[in-house]
Amino acid sequence: MTKQDLKDCHTRITPYIHRTPVLTSRLLNEICGTSIFFKCENFQRMGAFKMRGAANAILQLTAAQQSKGVVTHSSGNFAQAISLAAKSLGVKAYIVMPSTAPQVKKDAVKGYGGEIIECPPTLQDRENTSMQIQKEKGAAFLHPSNDLDVILGQGTAALELLEDQQDLEYIFTPVGGGGLIAGTALAAHFFGTNCKVIGGEPFEVDDAYRSLQSGKIETNTSTNTIADGLKTQLGDINFPIIQKHVSEIIRVEEQEIVDAMKLIWERMKIIIEPSCAVPFAALLKDKERFQNKKIGIVLSGGNVDLNHLPF
Amino acid sequence: MTKQDLKDCHTRITPYIHRTPVLTSRLLNEICGTSIFFKCENFQRMGAFKMRGAANAILQLTAAQQSKGVVTHSSGNFAQAISLAAKSLGVKAYIVMPSTAPQVKKDAVKGYGGEIIECPPTLQDRENTSMQIQKEKGAAFLHPSNDLDVILGQGTAALELLEDQQDLEYIFTPVGGGGLIAGTALAAHFFGTNCKVIGGEPFEVDDAYRSLQSGKIETNTSTNTIADGLKTQLGDINFPIIQKHVSEIIRVEEQEIVDAMKLIWERMKIIIEPSCAVPFAALLKDKERFQNKKIGIVLSGGNVDLNHLPF
Repeated sequence: MTKQDLKDCHTRITPYIHRTPVLTSRLLNEICGTSIFFKCENFQRMGAFKMRGAANAILQLTAAQQSKGVVTHSSGNFAQAISLAAKSLGVKAYIVMPSTAPQVKKDAVKGYGGEIIECPPTLQDRENTSMQIQKEKGAAFLHPSNDLDVILGQGTAALELLEDQQDLEYIFTPVGGGGLIAGTALAAHFFGTNCKVIGGEPFEVDDAYRSLQSGKIETNTSTNTIADGLKTQLGDINFPIIQKHVSEIIRVEEQEIVDAMKLIWERMKIIIEPSCAVPFAALLKDKERFQNKKIGIVLSGGNVDLNHLPF
Repeated sequence: MTKQDLKDCHTRITPYIHRTPVLTSRLLNEICGTSIFFKCENFQRMGAFKMRGAANAILQLTAAQQSKGVVTHSSGNFAQAISLAAKSLGVKAYIVMPSTAPQVKKDAVKGYGGEIIECPPTLQDRENTSMQIQKEKGAAFLHPSNDLDVILGQGTAALELLEDQQDLEYIFTPVGGGGLIAGTALAAHFFGTNCKVIGGEPFEVDDAYRSLQSGKIETNTSTNTIADGLKTQLGDINFPIIQKHVSEIIRVEEQEIVDAMKLIWERMKIIIEPSCAVPFAALLKDKERFQNKKIGIVLSGGNVDLNHLPF
């Protein structure tokens, strides 16, 4: 992948996404002793950066492929992103969801025009059902994070951030399936000036941290974290990019995530989801190392269930 | 007051306030059948429009007055606004608060540098204590809403909104003590093009609605509303302005306020306080009358206790 690929991707998806604002907070800068530039993907269409990768992945399909629709299995933001991006492009979206998924998430997918196919709540069932849709409908399968077009799409958030703030010394993102941090790492590599990329990850699902240590993709035996978007694991396409271009991963405790989330809600008056608070929690934790640095943080999304808040 | 007075006020306070962004939401526009431009004073310094009036009122004092400090009695946003504005200007702020005020509000005032003087929780005690501070310290008393300089300051939010969106047909604001809506009405009169100003008010504290009906300042016998910033009543300085320049006041039920607040949180991913949701609740309630209109709404503030949310 080249600098031009990322530029072309950005041009391609621009009609389908918001150019999200970059916010700052005097008080949070004082607390951290740094200059922080928050890229607000919580204000992105459908409420998360996933819209970028979803739009790019569907746009990269041929017209013949698009005519048969797309399928993914997800119960989170990617399901909503594919539903909305597909609808914007006049493409049919099949979303495989576990029958146990919360009604609020099913309603969100339906609201964006996705067709839900329910399956039993195991990964095997989700994969089998997706496979079946691919065969029956001829729909193209799209993976939420281990897909080059998705990775490029997610990288456009950091590309925009670096257009607005060219001399960032660090960009922090959360690490879940690896799509966002891999795309961000490419953007920092191509468009930054010695800009390092750092991941924030919960201790409870620290597979990416351990993968970078061991040099192979590690898995989580349990996923007991409030950061529900980060329970997924790295893939063979994004892991090599992360190995090459990500400086380090900082792990945080659950309480640190909740505290960071509350601080942003209270002081910036914006709604971010728990996964989204993880990179800021990482910076808060290690703030002594980053004194007087110029730091970008990708606020990845704002989809929370207001009836079930951690405070 | 003239157009030039409002312009001069804006120039005067500009170094001490944020120019807050104007946000839009495709989905909320679809729901209402209108074009809505939200002036986000929840992103203002200390989290509410009150910073504008507080800054102007202190700046209009003479140097001799400033040297003796300012005093107000409030347990809400105006207390924080006076504290922060005074601190920014190197002026001493005395804040008279009922001893029963929540600790979180006392902490906020202290955090912004105000000196709290506690008193028993009656209006009479608050007024007596304020009077005592005026006598003892020579401090200038500043009223949260019934003061021309405060009214002009609050009007600068609508002035900025009309600079950004010149052809607004309506501006909605909440009605509490009357400072914001009076200032907004002046701004719409001087800077709008036939732009009408509409107030949103809870049924539970509909003193302003009744005052416009009867032609004299009415009071509330009870103040049982979630919109805690709107429990105050109009004053003899702002009421004539409201009578002359406000088109109407729309009253809303408590549940309509909570629903409107939740809709903005969920869809716009921004935090607004209950009082702030009232004008949007008013528009939602009467949306049939405002089809295809271009409407500004002043989102007045974002200071909520996250541990006590209504959902």
